Formats: sequence, C-alpha cells, structure tokens
Amino acid sequence: MLINGERLKEQLDNFADFGRTGNNGVTRLALTEEDKQARDHFQKYCEELGMVVKIDDLGNIYAILEGVENEKPPVVIGSHLDSVKKGGRFDGVLGVLAGLEVVHTMVDYGIKPQIPVMVVNFTNEEGARFEPSMMASGILSGKFDKSKMMNKTDSRGVTFAKALNSIGYVGEEKNRLKEAKAFIEMHVEQGPVLEEESLSIGVVEGVMGMVCYDIEVTGESNHAGTTPMHSRKDALFVTNNLITKIREKLNNLDSSLVYTIGRMNVQPNIHTVIPNNVSFTLEARHQDTRIIQQVEGIIKELPGSINNEGCKVETTKLWDRNTVWFDEKVVESLEKSTAPLNYPYKRMVSGAGHDAQFVASYIPTGMIFVPSVNGKSHSEDELTTWEDCEKGANVMLETVLLLSH
Amino acid sequence: MLINGERLKEQLDNFADFGRTGNNGVTRLALTEEDKQARDHFQKYCEELGMVVKIDDLGNIYAILEGVENEKPPVVIGSHLDSVKKGGRFDGVLGVLAGLEVVHTMVDYGIKPQIPVMVVNFTNEEGARFEPSMMASGILSGKFDKSKMMNKTDSRGVTFAKALNSIGYVGEEKNRLKEAKAFIEMHVEQGPVLEEESLSIGVVEGVMGMVCYDIEVTGESNHAGTTPMHSRKDALFVTNNLITKIREKLNNLDSSLVYTIGRMNVQPNIHTVIPNNVSFTLEARHQDTRIIQQVEGIIKELPGSINNEGCKVETTKLWDRNTVWFDEKVVESLEKSTAPLNYPYKRMVSGAGHDAQFVASYIPTGMIFVPSVNGKSHSEDELTTWEDCEKGANVMLETVLLLSH
Repeated sequence: MLINGERLKEQLDNFADFGRTGNNGVTRLALTEEDKQARDHFQKYCEELGMVVKIDDLGNIYAILEGVENEKPPVVIGSHLDSVKKGGRFDGVLGVLAGLEVVHTMVDYGIKPQIPVMVVNFTNEEGARFEPSMMASGILSGKFDKSKMMNKTDSRGVTFAKALNSIGYVGEEKNRLKEAKAFIEMHVEQGPVLEEESLSIGVVEGVMGMVCYDIEVTGESNHAGTTPMHSRKDALFVTNNLITKIREKLNNLDSSLVYTIGRMNVQPNIHTVIPNNVSFTLEARHQDTRIIQQVEGIIKELPGSINNEGCKVETTKLWDRNTVWFDEKVVESLEKSTAPLNYPYKRMVSGAGHDAQFVASYIPTGMIFVPSVNGKSHSEDELTTWEDCEKGANVMLETVLLLSH
Repeated sequence: MLINGERLKEQLDNFADFGRTGNNGVTRLALTEEDKQARDHFQKYCEELGMVVKIDDLGNIYAILEGVENEKPPVVIGSHLDSVKKGGRFDGVLGVLAGLEVVHTMVDYGIKPQIPVMVVNFTNEEGARFEPSMMASGILSGKFDKSKMMNKTDSRGVTFAKALNSIGYVGEEKNRLKEAKAFIEMHVEQGPVLEEESLSIGVVEGVMGMVCYDIEVTGESNHAGTTPMHSRKDALFVTNNLITKIREKLNNLDSSLVYTIGRMNVQPNIHTVIPNNVSFTLEARHQDTRIIQQVEGIIKELPGSINNEGCKVETTKLWDRNTVWFDEKVVESLEKSTAPLNYPYKRMVSGAGHDAQFVASYIPTGMIFVPSVNGKSHSEDELTTWEDCEKGANVMLETVLLLSH
C-alpha cells in the first residue's frame, strides 16, 4: 500500500497559497490571518475525511480517525502549520499534510485501524511571532508555564492569548494531547546530510543537546588617529584572538560537533573609534553530553588562554539543553517500515529543535527526516523534491499501519 | 609677558555651560541653540575688548584686533566652538578661548600689533550634526562645494542653510578668511603621546595621511544546528582569518602606523544562523605616503592571502587623504616661542583631522597641541589640566608677538 503522491503534492501546493511570498516561499506567522486560513483548510479537509476535530486551549488541532477500540490511546502523527518570515513551503506543513495523506490513503483502502489515528497541528512551533519556539508542545510537556506564554507579546504588543482568540482557535483544556501509543513527526532535515549521502530517508533517534554562551570583551574606546597601537585596548582585536582560539580548540574535539558564532555586536561601531566592547554568542551542539561538557570547559578557560591585550573577557551561559533521545521501539518501527519500501536510510540525530523533542517527554516518539535541497531551510529557497516527500509519507504510512493495532 | 591663566580657566568654565551635560561634558552641536549661546558670548567678549567682529556667509566669526598697518594680512588664531554629542570641555573651544586670552593680554599690556591679529571660530568642525567634518574650512579652501554643503541635512532633515539662518549667523561672503600671514590653531592632542612623555607642548608639523577601506565577506547562511562544519561558508570565520592576517602584516610595517577596524556589521546576526555576510572598515594613518601605499598593497592582496573557506572577499577604497605638511617657518616660530618660556616640547604629526589642515592649503599654518589626560577625547571624560591650557596659550602669545610685526 502506497500513499497518493499526486494528492500530497496538490495539498502542499494548496497550502503554499496561505501566506505565499513573491519568491515561492511563505510567511505564515502563528495566529495570523494566513495561519487561520491554513488551519481552516486543514480542519475542513479532516472533516471531509470523516475525522473528528478537536481543539485545545492552546489552539492545537487534533483530527481523529476512529479506531475499533476507540477509547485506546491513539497513534499520533503531525507537525506544525506556522512558518517563519519568508520561510519555505515544506518546513512543518509537510509533516501535517503527510499525516493527512496517510489517513486519506487508509480511508481510500477502507481500513479502520484497531486504535485511533490522530493528526495534530501544534500551535506556534517557530516562535517567529511569539517567542519561545515550540511553545504549545512546551506547555503540553510541562516545560513552559501556560499563563506566562499567554502573556507573550509580538512586536506590536499583541498578546498570544489575544491573537489566539482573534482567529477563533481557543478550545478546551480537556482536549489536550495526553496519553498516546506513539508520536511520529515527519519533517524536512534543514541540513545537507541526507542530500550529501544521496538518501531520501533519515530515521531520527533524537535531538542534539546544545549550549549557548555570551562572550563579552571590554576594552577602551579611543580616537583611531591619535592613539598609538601600544596604548590601545581594542575589544575587537581581542575578540579575534578569542575566535582563533575557539576554532583551534573546537575543531579538534569531534567531527560531528557543530558550533556557531551567529551574533556579534561591536560598540560604538564607528570607523574612527577603537571598539571598547564586543559581545558575541557561541553555541555548540552535539548528541554526546560529554562533548558538550568539553566545549563548556574550553569556554570557561578561554579568558586565560588568550592574549587579552589589557581587555576584560567574560563568559556567561545563556542556556543549554540536554540531548533528547527518542523511544527506541518507535525508532525501530520506523526502520522496519523502510524495509518493504526498499528505501535506504540512515539513523541520525537532529541538530534543530522540533515539537517532537518536548512530546518525547511523555509519549514514545520518533521522527522521519526527508532531504533539504542544498540544506536550505527558513528560506524561500527551501526545497524538498516531490519524490522525497512521497517517500517520507510512505514510511509514515507503513509505521502507522504497524503501530495502530 | 604671560597670559592670565585664571581668566582663561574662568572663560573655559563659562563656555562649558553652553550645552553642559550631566557628567561634566558638553553637547554643543553646530548651529543649535547651545552653539548660538557660545557664539553670542564669544562675540560680546570680543567687542568688549575693542575688536571688530565680522561674519561670513558660512557663519564663521572673525574678531579683529586692529594693527598699525591695518590693511596688511593678519595673524589668525582660533579653532571651533562646536562639539560632538557628549563631548569634552576643551576640544575646539580651548583654541578659540586661548586666542581670545592672547588678545586680552595684549590689550592689558597696551600692545597694538604692527599687523592685525584675528581670532576665528570656524563653523561645524565636528560634522556631528551635519557631515562632513571641517565643513566651513573645507569650503574656504575650495575642498568642498558651498551649495552642496548648504543642502546637507541633519538627522531630522533640517538643512545646514536653514539651521545657519535660524541662529542668525549668515554673514557676507566678502568677509571670508582670505590672505593671512599665518594661521595657528591650538588644540587638545586627543591622544596619549604628550602625557606619556610628560610634555605640555606639542609642535604640530602636519596632519597624517590616511586611507579607509570597506572589506566585505560573503558566505552562505544556514541553520546553526543542522549544517556540518565542513558544509559551511561562514563569513565571520573568514573575517577572523582576514583580521589575523591584517594584524600580522600591518604590525610589521612601521611602529608609528595606526590602524583601526572600528565598524563591523554581521548579517543576519542571529545566534542560530551561520553569518552569510560581514562587512568592516579598515582605516590606517601614517605621515609617510610610502607606508600608506604599503598598507594599500597589503589590503589589495588580502583576498588571495588567506583561506577564504569558500567565501568571497571584496575590498573597496572608501576614501583617502594625503598627509598635510604645515609651513616650516610657522612651525619653527612655534618652536622658537617655547624657548623664553622654557617649556620642553616635541614635534609631532596629528593623527586627527583639524580645520588647520584645510586652511594650510592657502595660508602658512601651524598647530600647538596640549596633552589630553589618558588620551581621552570626544568624551565627557576629556580633560586637559589648567596648567597645560595656560602653557599652550603662553606659547601662542609668544608666537603671535613674534609674527605680528
């Protein structure tokens, strides 16, 4: 049994209209009119398939295909319909629509599962309008406090609670996702690994742990023309010493470690003034906690390990998160499902965060990755081939058939 | 004959009230109400001393102490009354008030000079409200076009012409500074050299040439968590390679070369995204044109001299200026004037720009520097001791007595 690839493509095209940008991407920020359009369309499609749709107090939408033993915990599949600003047509929405297509195929074949199958859309995964990201799944898992989240505001000062109400998606707390047999999220990889290895399927074992530091260098501002080199305390030059040391140390740790200096601010940032302050973020991700600990050790030793040229160097941990390992039985089910399809795959650990990492705290969880062309994501250039979308949905169908009885 | 140090201090205190900030500095942007207050006070003081005050079409103020041969070109002394935002109490205003004190002392002693002595206040030296800096002296010397300058706007869209008119300082073009026997500008050093060498007087031979480049690195933005290190084109890491190479090369050129990377902007500047673009300024100053040429040679070879890690590196010259050498006879007069006072001094080249560098194109010019405590300037912390202010004014008095007959 295979899903209908044409139909999946058609639905992906339909949903790309909700917030379509000029360059083939989408801007569908959480709880906007565009998000409402996508939600309404999703809900209508589910009802036409004979599914029962419920909404919880966080705006999460659950569409249930009844099972023979309908009181039993369901198999849950899905992802999120919101996007970042000028994002792609696949991130999130692919997981929801692949879930729908799986159900549609089961309906086509007249299959009534032994236990219910639920397709879910989680509210505000991206955190692009209301921080933090993965907000609703974070509340479900007890990671975030609901009342705090409801008061989060967007850049115009609108609260999450008000925005949720204004699109008419406030449901009941009793509808929240509680017990389930398994949760499976299919998602685009957002990196180049599968493409580089010419694979269509990644079986995701977990989400990498990470740590993020702020590093601040304080020197002294002086006139660029009148201050001899030996009298300077140049915060930018010392930052350069730090970055050189960071690269030297971290490049030797482990080849699968990723680390990024993404944000850097220079003060006063005037071409004729020696910088007196530079702050930058250093984040590092790896699945092995011991590697992350080594990274932290290196960061803590940084101030003493470089020539500070009279400047002060301070490091502050902004946050960290441990690696989330998915349920081994669910991961094995995903692997098993590739066999009849004859799809080669690789086990991998996600470097990006997903709702699945929070859901995993109380439901046996796994993820399927499909390739991102050129590794692009959070970009209008984001692309996953129709063939890979179809293959991913087929793996999901096999897995649902395997788990739903 | 010596100037009256108490009176000079008192005037410096008076002028510090025009735009006084909370932390003992001043904000007296060109052509503001605060600038008008300082101008009015200056004009009144000059008239009380019996000087004739003229204003030109650029708002420059000229106060003339008549000479015996009053039709002859004058000896001109002065500087500027405007300041940067949160600037110091000495930058600019010290040169104007020391000039006034020189005239006041001559009046006290009943000295009528053989040729006129003129005290000048140049409009908009700082360029803090209307760019570029040294605007009025630049027009006088033919470096800048008057009509273009008149249309320059501040951050609120007010033109220079309108602001000049609104404070009532539009005079006649025929009053512009033309021929003169000499121009001498006394100014705070704005650097640490005199203080480091325990000297009170710098005899300035010229203003350093400089060159300023924009260097831009273009890489590729990708997700910080999902992109393996070997798949990245990180513009910030390549910037780090460039800065390391710049320091290695320029540190070996000449010990009196100064160079600064003052401005750096990272795109998109998000902690979870690999930077795809970094641009930064590199400016270098040295009195010897050959050294500046060597700097430019190094900058041009930069893209090929580092590991670009797949990024593109482009260098663009933003501007340059040649070293301005002052009139050797004026410089020698300044040196000679220190002898009766028994002040040790050093010849030096200014790293900062001053009106004197433009005036020097058509009038024999020299400058006197007095020390800046801790080398601080363009800052509320700017400080020159009263003793050094007095010494500088005494050198100016001796020089004016020497040149004004």
